[in-house]
Amino acid sequence: MTTQEVANRLVTLCREGKNMEAMKELYDTNITSLEMAGAPNPEVKGIEAVTEKSNQWYAMVDEFHGSEISEPIVAGNHFTCTMKMDVTFKDANRVQMEEVAVYTVNNGKITQEQFFYELPPQS
Amino acid sequence: MTTQEVANRLVTLCREGKNMEAMKELYDTNITSLEMAGAPNPEVKGIEAVTEKSNQWYAMVDEFHGSEISEPIVAGNHFTCTMKMDVTFKDANRVQMEEVAVYTVNNGKITQEQFFYELPPQS
Repeated sequence: MTTQEVANRLVTLCREGKNMEAMKELYDTNITSLEMAGAPNPEVKGIEAVTEKSNQWYAMVDEFHGSEISEPIVAGNHFTCTMKMDVTFKDANRVQMEEVAVYTVNNGKITQEQFFYELPPQS
Repeated sequence: MTTQEVANRLVTLCREGKNMEAMKELYDTNITSLEMAGAPNPEVKGIEAVTEKSNQWYAMVDEFHGSEISEPIVAGNHFTCTMKMDVTFKDANRVQMEEVAVYTVNNGKITQEQFFYELPPQS
């Protein structure tokens, strides 16, 4: 698949809430997942650890109220999109999250994901 | 300025070829500029050093044949766009460059830029 095709497929699956299926289908075994410096798990490597990180996140969610994923834009072997989510966590906090996501594609598989968002102020 | 306003202004100036003016107007004094790991100058800090990095790059260019900058997409205090350039360098190499750019905005100024592109194969 080209970078554009991988981008379209990722966005389609994520819009259907099939994020875990997207990882299984599109992520390389040696995927690197990067969060903001200062966030938990700022760098996780390997499909098993990255899947586990996502599972842990979903386990904290009580209810999804909605999400919005932009059309992807592509340059070379990278693509980017924005992701917005309205979520209530099990601790009863309702949060509107928004982030820029950047994906690296090699040989038709996503080899890196990196997320950019505002960190909560230091307490 | 909001993140969306900073994004629109950056894209407008860059489409007019006014990249250096964009830096002067929109970049924070403590800007951090991140390239791909393995590229020259992977991390440069401060407006003077970042301006100098750009000046050095422009000094290598013989001719711009065209450029294409996507509409920016915004999430929280970040925005992203793609940038494509067709350039002949003074060493006579003509190159079609394309990259994803991600910008962080704080208090109406760009405090970080990060670029994602394909590195040439290791020789």
